[in-house]
Amino acid sequence: MRDGKVIEQPAEQTMLTQRYTEEAVKFIQEKKAAPFFLYFAHTFPHVPMFASSDFKGKSRAGIYGDAVEELDWSVGQVLGALRSEGLAERTLVVFSSDNGPWLIMGDQGGSAGLLRDGKGSTWEGGMRVPGIMWMPGRIRPGVSNQLAGTLDLFPTALALAGAALPEGVTVDGTNLAPVLFEKKELPARPYFYYRGVQLFACRIGEWKVHFKTQTGYGAAQPESHDPPLLFHLGRDPSEKRNVAAENPAVLAEIQQAVKTHEASVVPGESQLK
Amino acid sequence: MRDGKVIEQPAEQTMLTQRYTEEAVKFIQEKKAAPFFLYFAHTFPHVPMFASSDFKGKSRAGIYGDAVEELDWSVGQVLGALRSEGLAERTLVVFSSDNGPWLIMGDQGGSAGLLRDGKGSTWEGGMRVPGIMWMPGRIRPGVSNQLAGTLDLFPTALALAGAALPEGVTVDGTNLAPVLFEKKELPARPYFYYRGVQLFACRIGEWKVHFKTQTGYGAAQPESHDPPLLFHLGRDPSEKRNVAAENPAVLAEIQQAVKTHEASVVPGESQLK
Repeated sequence: MRDGKVIEQPAEQTMLTQRYTEEAVKFIQEKKAAPFFLYFAHTFPHVPMFASSDFKGKSRAGIYGDAVEELDWSVGQVLGALRSEGLAERTLVVFSSDNGPWLIMGDQGGSAGLLRDGKGSTWEGGMRVPGIMWMPGRIRPGVSNQLAGTLDLFPTALALAGAALPEGVTVDGTNLAPVLFEKKELPARPYFYYRGVQLFACRIGEWKVHFKTQTGYGAAQPESHDPPLLFHLGRDPSEKRNVAAENPAVLAEIQQAVKTHEASVVPGESQLK
Repeated sequence: MRDGKVIEQPAEQTMLTQRYTEEAVKFIQEKKAAPFFLYFAHTFPHVPMFASSDFKGKSRAGIYGDAVEELDWSVGQVLGALRSEGLAERTLVVFSSDNGPWLIMGDQGGSAGLLRDGKGSTWEGGMRVPGIMWMPGRIRPGVSNQLAGTLDLFPTALALAGAALPEGVTVDGTNLAPVLFEKKELPARPYFYYRGVQLFACRIGEWKVHFKTQTGYGAAQPESHDPPLLFHLGRDPSEKRNVAAENPAVLAEIQQAVKTHEASVVPGESQLK
């Protein structure tokens, strides 16, 4: 589709990554005179999986690996366009994902590495995704273990653009500029893990409490935990060893943060049914 | 111990990494005039786990992470000594491990990431380990997916030293110099996975066949598979999806390689009982 109109049906799916990339590069070239925002959402590696003939059969990992290698090429094209237009040093590039791997898809589902479970669940394998940010000369190469999410992109983009937050609206995210440019620590904040409209888990620092758990696909109902489960994500990133009994004070702190949170929000209707 | 004599008992275990590192650096400084071979086997991250006060409590991952960070420091000291002695460009440094994580040790056992099982098993989590080689100016930074193992270090070291292989002895390894220095492909070769004196599995290229499997710790007896299990390690590095039924020719090729191998070896007595 372009501007709401269907321009090709059925689409030639092997060419989607290349065609989207061409459009993204063209957008950068056309908009370069003023600040711009490009949201570049690729189709792959979602199933059904395709790659162009330049990449098909080239990776060790079948069509999934081929599609990922073509995405890697695409990212290179976008960064190259920013560089050749002289925009790299004043453009923040964010690479991330909406969720972990769709495990029931087998060879075409991806992998969460050592993280537990995948897409659909509030285990780390479902929720933790790559968060890569690039702005040469402004962001020094390095790794941060601070907790951030896509909720933070809106206030970060506003801050970089010099715009104020909208009034009368509660914004859940935080401006990440101090982390990115000055390697500062974010203020401690609880992070809430929802599945649909139900709060399943909460994390503060390295500690994560699960009140409910449910495998991403396959389980009809969540399992409730009372007492809740507690994991230390630094020592146990795979969430294998529940240490709630040994850490009652941590558990109590997180339970209090959840109470405060729940008193501050009005649950909406589920939009997932 | 030094030269077979006990010099401290009980040893101050928090200082082992630092003291071994000092000895390694001293060895390099003393031996630098002629070719030398340094086998530097650290105690950690084997349990019981210790770190010096410089590292204790510094990582996110408890004492295991602290010990790994101290090892990282140690490697830096060794590479630094080679550099400052002007030996870096003519010394091959190999960093590897004898087996995967000891999973029943929990927080102190480590992780095999997305690989299945751990130490003691012939699943990839038990057998596949880091293989990092360094020789600045000779080895170009990069990643190779070719299959190699510690059996290859002996012929590689002999080749680099200009020495001939011993006569009358069958050497199972291969000289890796063409891979390291010229990015050449190794000749295809089957790789055999033993547990004790029993052949459990065999790999050729991306394909791995399991004739027997047994979890690293906890299972009293191996489970035999007839027909054997077949996995494609490129598409399925976690060995989750047995594709033997769809690939009879691959299975037959690996079974033939095993027959040829078994006809060529005389099994020894197990030394593990």
